[in-house]
Amino acid sequence: MATIITLTTDFGVEDGYVAALKGVILGINPRATVVDICHQIEAQNIAQGAFVLMTACPYFPDGSIHLAIVDPEVGGGRRAIALRTGRAVFIGPDNGVLSHAALRASAQDQPGGGVLSELPPGVECFEISNPRYWRQPVSPTFHGRDVFAPVAAHVSAGVALSDLGRAVGSIRVLPFPRPEALERGGLLGHVLHIDHFGNIITDIQRGDLPPGRFRLEVGHHSIASLGRTYCEAEGLTALIGSSDHLEIALRNGSAARFLGLGIGDPAKLVRDR
Amino acid sequence: MATIITLTTDFGVEDGYVAALKGVILGINPRATVVDICHQIEAQNIAQGAFVLMTACPYFPDGSIHLAIVDPEVGGGRRAIALRTGRAVFIGPDNGVLSHAALRASAQDQPGGGVLSELPPGVECFEISNPRYWRQPVSPTFHGRDVFAPVAAHVSAGVALSDLGRAVGSIRVLPFPRPEALERGGLLGHVLHIDHFGNIITDIQRGDLPPGRFRLEVGHHSIASLGRTYCEAEGLTALIGSSDHLEIALRNGSAARFLGLGIGDPAKLVRDR
Amino acid sequence: MATIITLTTDFGVEDGYVAALKGVILGINPRATVVDICHQIEAQNIAQGAFVLMTACPYFPDGSIHLAIVDPEVGGGRRAIALRTGRAVFIGPDNGVLSHAALRASAQDQPGGGVLSELPPGVECFEISNPRYWRQPVSPTFHGRDVFAPVAAHVSAGVALSDLGRAVGSIRVLPFPRPEALERGGLLGHVLHIDHFGNIITDIQRGDLPPGRFRLEVGHHSIASLGRTYCEAEGLTALIGSSDHLEIALRNGSAARFLGLGIGDPAKLVRDR
Repeated sequence: MATIITLTTDFGVEDGYVAALKGVILGINPRATVVDICHQIEAQNIAQGAFVLMTACPYFPDGSIHLAIVDPEVGGGRRAIALRTGRAVFIGPDNGVLSHAALRASAQDQPGGGVLSELPPGVECFEISNPRYWRQPVSPTFHGRDVFAPVAAHVSAGVALSDLGRAVGSIRVLPFPRPEALERGGLLGHVLHIDHFGNIITDIQRGDLPPGRFRLEVGHHSIASLGRTYCEAEGLTALIGSSDHLEIALRNGSAARFLGLGIGDPAKLVRDR
Repeated sequence: MATIITLTTDFGVEDGYVAALKGVILGINPRATVVDICHQIEAQNIAQGAFVLMTACPYFPDGSIHLAIVDPEVGGGRRAIALRTGRAVFIGPDNGVLSHAALRASAQDQPGGGVLSELPPGVECFEISNPRYWRQPVSPTFHGRDVFAPVAAHVSAGVALSDLGRAVGSIRVLPFPRPEALERGGLLGHVLHIDHFGNIITDIQRGDLPPGRFRLEVGHHSIASLGRTYCEAEGLTALIGSSDHLEIALRNGSAARFLGLGIGDPAKLVRDR
Repeated sequence: MATIITLTTDFGVEDGYVAALKGVILGINPRATVVDICHQIEAQNIAQGAFVLMTACPYFPDGSIHLAIVDPEVGGGRRAIALRTGRAVFIGPDNGVLSHAALRASAQDQPGGGVLSELPPGVECFEISNPRYWRQPVSPTFHGRDVFAPVAAHVSAGVALSDLGRAVGSIRVLPFPRPEALERGGLLGHVLHIDHFGNIITDIQRGDLPPGRFRLEVGHHSIASLGRTYCEAEGLTALIGSSDHLEIALRNGSAARFLGLGIGDPAKLVRDR
């Protein structure tokens, strides 16, 4: 079948690692369409991988298979899993890298992360433990090539998730950062991601915005009101970005560099007086 | 239809932005072949995007669709356009990023850039204003995902350009740098692009070369004659490169770093005495 | 035919060079599946290109065509060749970039590199000299676009290698670094490659490991025993990596940076006393 398989990894693009995944996939299902989401996830940064996958996967057609491999415990005790939601299949290590994308709403109910002990309705999850669909021999350091890629290819060719291993009812989820309520309807948000342009994406989502007039305090700067586009203000703009998060941008520049902000730093929405 | 859609953007490869375009395209036309031209255009550098697209698109088969998104005014007043030439379709913001590729010869007739008020024969252009072919809701900051990608996918699947919006008769073109005539048949050229190898590509084209013996003066160096390949001289070579522009190379090194040159710097072709 | 064509180059991703190859290929064979192996080979580093190609190509299905272009002598005297092994076709300049991948075992018999004067059984090689399958005009500086890509596309569409030019019986091979025997069964290995994670890959292969207990001396450090995974030790680990070479890793860090090692540096396997 001509299914889409996406790849999100921390493998970089200087070696043959990503290509090995693609070779294995196309050897099993020559009709798969393999699409790179990102291979520049910082090495071992599971949270960054989870965020980037979450922001990209909603735009793929139903039935796509999303492979995410940021896997510092490869070859150790962590489980490998395949999850099916109403829209897509997610395959990767059970370390949280899939959790934002596969379980967005549910994962948010676990603010501190950890183990989600009940899967939401309509989601099923299987451990990847049946070696029948693996490449042999399996390198203990490269399950991407020898376990995840062949499993994704077999699933794209019609193998049922239930053939991969036993059903599992709980998976690991990452903390999903959320803003904290402040007095008078304000919000204490945090920097979630800094993109290629230096735009600062916070954990304040469109639906979190309180009614009324607010200003955004970030670094030593204050932004008076919410804009709509990157080009309407001369300097800093705050707006709801394309992933429905509150975002801070600097026209024709990097807001992150200008403000000196990094992941986790505060961004405060304060009621105008 | 199995049409090629190429992508040229300043989105970088650290986020899920490029993948979102591909997901949207494949959701609309699963048979499209999506090919990256470049995603490392410097942020907001329309001229660089225009140059890279111009150098790559001639090698794609007739009927290819070229999507170019370097779009600092996204969500503001700039128009979105789709152009058809005898060979290909070009889709993007009407800020000049398409002009070198779609209108090479004509754009050169407008040395200072600006608005080309009459399209050359055989070229038609339509404003992208019919929301029927867009993804909804449209993010004001990401027309790539919500306007350009779906429109390109629909066009690849057979939608006529005339269904996208009204015909337009004038478009914005970038200045196309050209060498200036010097006394005694010489030419004052400029650095147009510096490639990955550090080769310096100038705005002097093959057809500009004057007859007779000339030397090239660049930085504090003088190159005595034109070579043919990167490997024939020990140090600096000047030659007509693969895009038919006069190019300065350093054997096994970066000419740009060696000479300390940047975009716009002069390179002078002077008659030997 | 729906054949896979892989690309390994030093072209980088900032220009339109890689896309030009893809456009040419798809113009000749629209059904080819083009897969990037790597475009971040250091400029002119033939050995690095040969290594990366060698580590990735075994994972592609039989019949794949591997194009490798690290070609500092382009337009000069070097030959262009197409090699067929029992599994795949390799196309590129005859400068050794194909030799590890196409002739792994045989190339190792030529420790100093140079010319392999007899092809191993089952391998055939042809000079690419018949301009019929080239793009015209041929740029002397970009045989990738004008010679190698069209030839690969034609071969993927069914053209026989023997139509490309005359059979050749000897090709250039790169030195294939191998460890040297030390007293008491030890081995003096060398750093072959440093990957994106900073893992240090040596020229000591799985089959080279002597029986008994050994320790690895590298930089000013000594690693007491061989591990199995990246996550089992706190600091440095030595293990047999996914390409069956002895590899040195640092948990959640870069072993290469930590140890200050580079290509060619020694890694010594010494018998424990």
